Amino acid sequence: MSDAEEQLEPLVTEIPPKADDLSAWYTAVTLKAELVSYAPVRGCVVLRPYGFGIWENLQKALDERFKATGHENAYFPLLIPEHLLRKEAEHVEGFAPEVAWVTQGGQEKLNERLAIRPTSEVTVGVMYAKWIQSHRDLPILINQWANVVRWEKATRPFLRTMEFLWQEGHTAHASAAEAREETLRMLEIYREVAQDVVGVPVYAGKKSASERFPGAVETFSIEALMPDGKALQSGTSHDLGQNFSKAYDITFADVDQTTKHVFTTSWGMSWRMLGGMIMVHGDDRGLRLPPRLAPIEAVIVPIVRGSDSQAVEQSHQIAQALRADGFRVRVDDRDYTPGWKYSEWEMRGVPIRLEIGPRDVQSNSVTLVRRDKSKGEEGAKASVSRGELARRLRSELDDVQRGMYQQAQAFLQAHTYSVDDRERFFALCESRAGMVDIPFCNRADCEANVKQRTTATTRVLRELREGGAVCVACGEPATVQAYFAQTY
Amino acid sequence: MSDAEEQLEPLVTEIPPKADDLSAWYTAVTLKAELVSYAPVRGCVVLRPYGFGIWENLQKALDERFKATGHENAYFPLLIPEHLLRKEAEHVEGFAPEVAWVTQGGQEKLNERLAIRPTSEVTVGVMYAKWIQSHRDLPILINQWANVVRWEKATRPFLRTMEFLWQEGHTAHASAAEAREETLRMLEIYREVAQDVVGVPVYAGKKSASERFPGAVETFSIEALMPDGKALQSGTSHDLGQNFSKAYDITFADVDQTTKHVFTTSWGMSWRMLGGMIMVHGDDRGLRLPPRLAPIEAVIVPIVRGSDSQAVEQSHQIAQALRADGFRVRVDDRDYTPGWKYSEWEMRGVPIRLEIGPRDVQSNSVTLVRRDKSKGEEGAKASVSRGELARRLRSELDDVQRGMYQQAQAFLQAHTYSVDDRERFFALCESRAGMVDIPFCNRADCEANVKQRTTATTRVLRELREGGAVCVACGEPATVQAYFAQTY
Repeated sequence: MSDAEEQLEPLVTEIPPKADDLSAWYTAVTLKAELVSYAPVRGCVVLRPYGFGIWENLQKALDERFKATGHENAYFPLLIPEHLLRKEAEHVEGFAPEVAWVTQGGQEKLNERLAIRPTSEVTVGVMYAKWIQSHRDLPILINQWANVVRWEKATRPFLRTMEFLWQEGHTAHASAAEAREETLRMLEIYREVAQDVVGVPVYAGKKSASERFPGAVETFSIEALMPDGKALQSGTSHDLGQNFSKAYDITFADVDQTTKHVFTTSWGMSWRMLGGMIMVHGDDRGLRLPPRLAPIEAVIVPIVRGSDSQAVEQSHQIAQALRADGFRVRVDDRDYTPGWKYSEWEMRGVPIRLEIGPRDVQSNSVTLVRRDKSKGEEGAKASVSRGELARRLRSELDDVQRGMYQQAQAFLQAHTYSVDDRERFFALCESRAGMVDIPFCNRADCEANVKQRTTATTRVLRELREGGAVCVACGEPATVQAYFAQTY
Repeated sequence: MSDAEEQLEPLVTEIPPKADDLSAWYTAVTLKAELVSYAPVRGCVVLRPYGFGIWENLQKALDERFKATGHENAYFPLLIPEHLLRKEAEHVEGFAPEVAWVTQGGQEKLNERLAIRPTSEVTVGVMYAKWIQSHRDLPILINQWANVVRWEKATRPFLRTMEFLWQEGHTAHASAAEAREETLRMLEIYREVAQDVVGVPVYAGKKSASERFPGAVETFSIEALMPDGKALQSGTSHDLGQNFSKAYDITFADVDQTTKHVFTTSWGMSWRMLGGMIMVHGDDRGLRLPPRLAPIEAVIVPIVRGSDSQAVEQSHQIAQALRADGFRVRVDDRDYTPGWKYSEWEMRGVPIRLEIGPRDVQSNSVTLVRRDKSKGEEGAKASVSRGELARRLRSELDDVQRGMYQQAQAFLQAHTYSVDDRERFFALCESRAGMVDIPFCNRADCEANVKQRTTATTRVLRELREGGAVCVACGEPATVQAYFAQTY
């Protein structure tokens, strides 16, 4: 066994096979790839630099789309006085069980408890009531990047933690139609980012009444499918109608001088999207990052023979040139064997590895290895001349991004079942087969019955494909098309 | 009185003269310019989009410098279990009176209180103890952008709020020398950003023992001078030595295989810097923003006569062209008079206004007006042809940035007093004259005496200018040169 092989061994064996136990694989990957560490406070994780680098790229992708559609960032306070939280009845009922309460400040016992925000509709509502007077003040299009706290029992990195990072958009409009348009515009941005940046295909649509955000008139979401057949809600967009504007008295003088309540929306995507990305793309070697999210698009590994430092020097020269071309690259010139480094960076999901050995130095070329392909697979490895490197790297990264999406898309399609048989519907739901698509009556008791029997719930609703269809779950007239799935 | 004048009036009178009452002026400007609003929770503000835009520009300036010096971002949890906070004795003593405590989660009463972070040395210490094993793991260079809470009584936007936004860097090193080098490197970045980006000159140096961060071996800071003669500490960098590594047991196996405690640093700049920027640059017309921080570098105001829309069309064309050249511009085509808009954008501190009236349309030019100059002053107003606009705007913005810094620098110099007379020293300190520079004995009781008599404290210490000098405050031998000032 060579040094490289010896050191390679532990890294690989520490990750259990993905197909055997997705949950164990997932936890191992998030920790070993140094995305997160468990924090000293229950239910929380630390987002480590490599994980944060991925989050920063997702932030950038969302933030530039928010700004391109006229939104601005702002910051609202962390703490919410209890009496304000209680103003919107459904909202407080939905969130109260999850709230962390501050009861003491310094030596002082507080007269009123302060909630750590589980979301910011309340504070935003109070402020919008102050800021908005006239139709000239509308629309207000604000986004906030923030931490929120929800008192959860279980902890799974990214998927469910007591504190998490997210963005929450909050807008106010003069009409119901404008608010609905905004709600759908943001849903579409989420769909596009999930697909084009994260490489995760999703189904987008409306939520059933039971799955709605507390206080919303209508909730929309994007839903991704995980390898274990469970759906992951990955972004939500809420049309809040006038529920919050009435609770917090947000009014405006319209063009005709009458006083009206505004129409509001809110929409959010959190680091949960990264949990979906990890599960969808990863494999038994560890993480696989879509290039657009990867903090390191290409890692350069010099292969040093003896005391010859040419490979290291060339690696740094190449890195510098690639950085100047806008690539995110890192040279790994640490004191480990090349084999160990290959294994480590594969585990950490870097899309492309550039090896520079003595032969590459001599031929003024670089060996390019793709993370998304298996050893020996066509296109997995190529020798690229230095003059061609930037152009080739660009096209390989695009190809990796496209390929990862297509692979995920093929999985989603293969695990989407259009069903018209009742027994098969329940069997697929119960066996966690994937997204089960049926004409659905959209009645609460039918939905509750499916959930009770199978634990599956409606994910999103769309328009009925064919008129006159009956609900596959109960036989009553169908009103919508629904995806059912078990869920995270 | 024209329409424009009528509407202009209220805006201007709402801001009291800066020289009469800096505090009243400051509060009015931060609110009227829509930088902040008071939040519904005591002691907190909302950072509104315009204020957040300024903060984002400061963030960018800092973040790119952090990354260029090898730092990565990460995210540590908001909550800290009480027993961990108690491990570093000085640290907990310094912060305990300011901590907000979570005692309840959902329906559950907690067994141990959780502190909302007043700063993150504690959690970082616990995590670094897990992450660091070998000298190969060092240095660790991490920064975090975060909200922190300190239970304060008084609220002044940016200067003192219960919750505030900041960045906190946390690094770990193998040697004391490396940690000190890092501490000074970050201090220099703060100095450079304050000066080159915020346009605020500062004195940088070491803190006296009484002004040190709780738990630090040595604290360094940058200190700006406000128009009322008080100093504003605007960024701090701490050499923590092995205090935290011993409290949290952060050790590493060195090259020689012996186990050693690491050396750590921490450093932070908050939105407080924006408070200094507002006070230093503002005038009776309101805010004046240095171009590098301004969310809008130039506002374009079309002057419409009757129903002629040419000026509006041209404004949007010009805006588009300038945006393509990388400028941050906004067209104000709202339904207000030009005069009202001029007054509003002056109050909000936009560095340059571009007016496009019928005559400008005809001559294919633009009237450029600078916020930093008074009406009628040389260079306050110019007609610029459209072909020249981008180049001219660039050079005018650079000139504004430079001019604002120079003005602030002249003020600082004029209000820095090198003193060798005891009575004059006390009189200057007591009358809040500015930065009072003396040879100083650096003894705690002498410092306490000055503070008790004048409320002034040491701001930063530097090397003694001349050997053999005596302390101006007490007559004992001087060991350092010190700036004294009253402070925010």
